[in-house]
Amino acid sequence: MSDALRPAQDSAYARAGVDIAAGNQAVRRYRDVTSGWTHPDQLGALGGFSGLFRLPGDGKRALVGSTDGVGTKILIAAALRRYDTVGADLVNHCVNDILVTGADPLFFLDYLAVGKLDPEVAALVVSGVHRACRENGCALLGGETAEMPGVYRPEHFDLAGTIVGIVDLDAIPDPNRVQPGDAIVGLPAVGLHTNGYTLARALIAGDEYGAPFGETTFADALLAPHPSYLEPVRAIRAVADVKSMAHITGGGLLENVPRTLPEHVTANFEQTRWDVPAIMRELVARGDLSHEERYRTLNMGVGYTLIVPITDVAKALEAAPGARVVGFVQPRREGDPQVIVRPARTA
Amino acid sequence: MSDALRPAQDSAYARAGVDIAAGNQAVRRYRDVTSGWTHPDQLGALGGFSGLFRLPGDGKRALVGSTDGVGTKILIAAALRRYDTVGADLVNHCVNDILVTGADPLFFLDYLAVGKLDPEVAALVVSGVHRACRENGCALLGGETAEMPGVYRPEHFDLAGTIVGIVDLDAIPDPNRVQPGDAIVGLPAVGLHTNGYTLARALIAGDEYGAPFGETTFADALLAPHPSYLEPVRAIRAVADVKSMAHITGGGLLENVPRTLPEHVTANFEQTRWDVPAIMRELVARGDLSHEERYRTLNMGVGYTLIVPITDVAKALEAAPGARVVGFVQPRREGDPQVIVRPARTA
Repeated sequence: MSDALRPAQDSAYARAGVDIAAGNQAVRRYRDVTSGWTHPDQLGALGGFSGLFRLPGDGKRALVGSTDGVGTKILIAAALRRYDTVGADLVNHCVNDILVTGADPLFFLDYLAVGKLDPEVAALVVSGVHRACRENGCALLGGETAEMPGVYRPEHFDLAGTIVGIVDLDAIPDPNRVQPGDAIVGLPAVGLHTNGYTLARALIAGDEYGAPFGETTFADALLAPHPSYLEPVRAIRAVADVKSMAHITGGGLLENVPRTLPEHVTANFEQTRWDVPAIMRELVARGDLSHEERYRTLNMGVGYTLIVPITDVAKALEAAPGARVVGFVQPRREGDPQVIVRPARTA
Repeated sequence: MSDALRPAQDSAYARAGVDIAAGNQAVRRYRDVTSGWTHPDQLGALGGFSGLFRLPGDGKRALVGSTDGVGTKILIAAALRRYDTVGADLVNHCVNDILVTGADPLFFLDYLAVGKLDPEVAALVVSGVHRACRENGCALLGGETAEMPGVYRPEHFDLAGTIVGIVDLDAIPDPNRVQPGDAIVGLPAVGLHTNGYTLARALIAGDEYGAPFGETTFADALLAPHPSYLEPVRAIRAVADVKSMAHITGGGLLENVPRTLPEHVTANFEQTRWDVPAIMRELVARGDLSHEERYRTLNMGVGYTLIVPITDVAKALEAAPGARVVGFVQPRREGDPQVIVRPARTA
């Protein structure tokens, strides 16, 4: 199904080598070629973050699965020979994807493909996967390491993974309950997470990675690991009525939030309510990214969103340090987009 | 864990670019880096074909997961621009891997990584995945398509996938019940399936793919899809007491069969009891492969094995057309290997 393919629709990204039109066309073609048959136990996917499957012989629960990769962030990791953090990027990305359905992670499997197998490098990658699994209370159930000379250059590798979780059917958020006046709570992003790296690599040259950047270096800012939102989301759900959630990955706020919104509302983000990480501001400045481009390619500082009734806001913010109200749900007027970010200026 | 990494231990394979020592070392290092913590619901993996996880809140069943890739077979598919069969290779390989535990497939997720996204090519790949899922009664729950310029050459791609199945704990075969005198039933392989392609590519040049080979072409012989053994295995298990099974993938009979054998027995294969496919005989002749090399790199015509009491043989063979007795279990003498294939000559 590969609905995770949601590259940004902008020119800087296309210039960096990612073909948006092709991506959208592929998604449409996948729908065509898979439309002839759906397994009877397959449930409608919630916004395409993950797929749901009715647990056989159990009327109350579903399994939730999601596959993802680290993307071209691995090229920066490979260039810097830092192999121990991409595992956390991968696992946490996957944990967050199924978290949108309310699922608890059960287990994870990794796929590591290399041009030339260096056992120490592979072990560093897998140790990072294992550590992140442990932190999320998720079993590392297995995996595959493939040495494929001819497909990958000797120094290159690819890393993908699959997570499986479980959810009570009645605990799955129902976005149809979202209504004007609800608040959007955002959890802070620490950096690019796992998206926008093809663009970042086009704007920041490899020989700059070691250079100072604020109180850190470009390397550290670029490789900051994708966080897991499992704990803050559990904490907020324990005290607040969460109607809808979104994991802000490729496509940014503009493409990810609408995936779990009813059509009659608009999510109105007020950018002055949160901080845009320095590395995003740098990319915006260097690439002269348009407003559209920023919020479609980068998370711009919001890693995860939860929609709650206004009356639950105080409890939600108290439950999760760092959480902030980042916007509100409004009635959608004819012709309005489903997501608006104000003001247009962010850099 | 990546225990699927079991490259052959021979020189022709190494010359073709796959480093066996590195593979074994990586597996040992994975064990080191993951030994500090195991999820309490994780069950011992049966021979490493897949991982088992106790289904929460259900004392009787386990989920079974496995991740695999198509390997360098995709390079031949890409060279021949045949994109619709690698999906079946991948899905069927995964179905067979979890089948060793007795699991029924539930759902599958694919990971397709490309250098340059061609929507029609991607749709052909995914249509093959979807068709094979349907044939195995398995949902295609989701997937990821990643366009990664810089990692993959424009014409190259990689394809991996993860399957999740379910099994009753008391239906999992117990290899400890295997005893001398038991028969080994083999299901026929149609070709290389998904292993040995780095070697095959070293021995058969790209410009030969279109050339006639027996009643077919090298292209057709090399790309013959990896079959699913779900139906024959179900049919045999319905009538026979199956004590142990093995999926014959990378590592061949010599490395895969011992994974589900007790230490006190030897599996004695009698090669005159089955046919070695023509493409294997061709590779053996061209590469002057040693006996060891043949049975460690290639399946040599046996795709899947089931160990049954001698009294159940007639019923087993009747249940699955094409199944044959390929050998017998014997007491293992001091210093004997766990698998012997006689005679040494096969080509």
